[in-house]
Amino acid sequence: MSHSNADQRLKVEAANQLVQRIFVAAGLPQADAATVTDNLVQADLRGHASHGISRARVYCNRIRDGLVATAPEIKVLNETPAAFHLDGGHGMGAVVAAEAMRMCVDKARSSGIAMCSLRAGAHFGIASYYTMQAAEKDMIGYACSNAPATMAPWGGITPMLGTNPFSMSVPAGKHRPIVFDSSSSIVARGKINLAEIEDCPIPLGWAIDDKGRPTTNATEALKGSALPFGEHKGYGIALMIDILAGVLSGAGYGPHLGPLWNNSETHQNLGFFLLAINIASFRNVEEFKAEIDQMIDEIKASKKAPNTDEILMPGEIEYRNEQYNRRHGIVVGPGVLRDLEALLREFELDIDLAAHLRSA
Amino acid sequence: MSHSNADQRLKVEAANQLVQRIFVAAGLPQADAATVTDNLVQADLRGHASHGISRARVYCNRIRDGLVATAPEIKVLNETPAAFHLDGGHGMGAVVAAEAMRMCVDKARSSGIAMCSLRAGAHFGIASYYTMQAAEKDMIGYACSNAPATMAPWGGITPMLGTNPFSMSVPAGKHRPIVFDSSSSIVARGKINLAEIEDCPIPLGWAIDDKGRPTTNATEALKGSALPFGEHKGYGIALMIDILAGVLSGAGYGPHLGPLWNNSETHQNLGFFLLAINIASFRNVEEFKAEIDQMIDEIKASKKAPNTDEILMPGEIEYRNEQYNRRHGIVVGPGVLRDLEALLREFELDIDLAAHLRSA
Repeated sequence: MSHSNADQRLKVEAANQLVQRIFVAAGLPQADAATVTDNLVQADLRGHASHGISRARVYCNRIRDGLVATAPEIKVLNETPAAFHLDGGHGMGAVVAAEAMRMCVDKARSSGIAMCSLRAGAHFGIASYYTMQAAEKDMIGYACSNAPATMAPWGGITPMLGTNPFSMSVPAGKHRPIVFDSSSSIVARGKINLAEIEDCPIPLGWAIDDKGRPTTNATEALKGSALPFGEHKGYGIALMIDILAGVLSGAGYGPHLGPLWNNSETHQNLGFFLLAINIASFRNVEEFKAEIDQMIDEIKASKKAPNTDEILMPGEIEYRNEQYNRRHGIVVGPGVLRDLEALLREFELDIDLAAHLRSA
Repeated sequence: MSHSNADQRLKVEAANQLVQRIFVAAGLPQADAATVTDNLVQADLRGHASHGISRARVYCNRIRDGLVATAPEIKVLNETPAAFHLDGGHGMGAVVAAEAMRMCVDKARSSGIAMCSLRAGAHFGIASYYTMQAAEKDMIGYACSNAPATMAPWGGITPMLGTNPFSMSVPAGKHRPIVFDSSSSIVARGKINLAEIEDCPIPLGWAIDDKGRPTTNATEALKGSALPFGEHKGYGIALMIDILAGVLSGAGYGPHLGPLWNNSETHQNLGFFLLAINIASFRNVEEFKAEIDQMIDEIKASKKAPNTDEILMPGEIEYRNEQYNRRHGIVVGPGVLRDLEALLREFELDIDLAAHLRSA
């Protein structure tokens, strides 16, 4: 979605501080508040406002309703030489997934590859947050989560699958890491949620209504179904993620998961599947990175299609967004600002939000 | 592609026998000839003639030219508690990949997850051949291979990436395993190769010519570029596979790999990435399978879109094709028949191909 005239920019340090204070006031320990805030602000920095601090409201609601644990115990249900089966204790997704990826990375140093299969998880934000964590440690990181059913199977109109996100990150040498991050729908459902918050239409082709008709109305789309990318192939990918993340971990799958929004009754009980591959177990890390650099250089130098200025690597736009937004602030729409102001009032936090804003 | 009038059907036992004898005559040991034949005939049975016995000609050419080793040594370059780094010795892809998947499955029994990263590989046919091998052992199997550059990056027109295939298979209980198998292009390049062999046009949208223009001419398409599925998302997936299978193993990537076709000079030096996840390390296997059955039942019973008869699981069409083709024979076009007859003559094999054919 492009910015509307009503959008403003919020300084990054201010966003970090105020969202952290909100989460601490909501009941999270300081360190966990910092992790969740970092996850959300990273999404805003990378240009994915749908997964950014716009989520503070619903996260706080779920803490208030006792549906996200503020001091979860991450239980190891089983451990093998290369895998953990974990129970996330319904803790904040970002806290639990970041810890699980740390466990993968630690184990993969000796095992070559290591995975976590986690149940009792909650919404973990952008999947690339965890895969970049692995890439920083010279590993290839992979992460996916299932999500409540909002997407019909190919040939159907009833949501049976989530718009299940998956990400893989790869370290490079002179270049930035390659960061692939995608939903299995044409766009992340969060972008439709944000359009509803900001009362914007959505492009045709993103979703169908509950009768199976294409729609540009975000509310109708949320009642209907998102569409998979690449037709039956995206359907297959969403299904594979639901199995890897959900069924394998024992979390459950699509229609049996708790919604994030408008749900004051049930845990989400999402499943995560995280993977770290230790490059050094296979190749000299510097040689690997040099070859990734060469690959990037060759692709970017290859012949462009008419009307194309530049061939981009996965994650490149997001990195540029981050550079820009670090300087100028993250974009917040009026709906998100209203939510934040309401949270500050509710938690009686004396922060002058307006003082940190400028027009976008 | 639909069958043309000139297509005929070849009995499965006859196909197995004659292709095995061809490969033995070409120099493969009996057991390896059986594996490669089984891989190709499986593809034909499943309805993917592009990856079936139509490949016998080019495989034999590559053996003749000394570019595929008939008695490869699969070298273990490194072994960790959960991973093998392998050199495939430029052996037949199916022989090497089936052995590598066996190693993954064996290791995963104790390690929970196990992977093989293999370099010096050659074309391995349908990726699902290996993932089904894992599913038969109550594991989730994943396999991908990189391939010589025939697909432009998103925004480009020069082939820099293969139409890199990936597959995942999941065992079920009362139902057949779920078998996802996909190229990262809109269609597998093999379907364009087969269209050229059979002198058929291809649908618009599959490929662009070497000027970047959409084309229905298979030969022009082969000179140009395949198109990724899901636009930039399929591009990202192809790239991730090239890194996982190619760069990690040290095989090389896209533009540096040897073509399968029209290449009498170089090894392919493909990379494979294979993964087996031992379900029993995470859940009771029967419970897991029962939940997969339930998931399948729920999805198939969900509301269908207008003009849709049935919602299909990944691999379901292929399984039905297999049932049908086992009874009626696999479909072979006149181009493939000419190739097989020529091979029988070259190797002086006394097999009456015509006796095993019926009209399709």
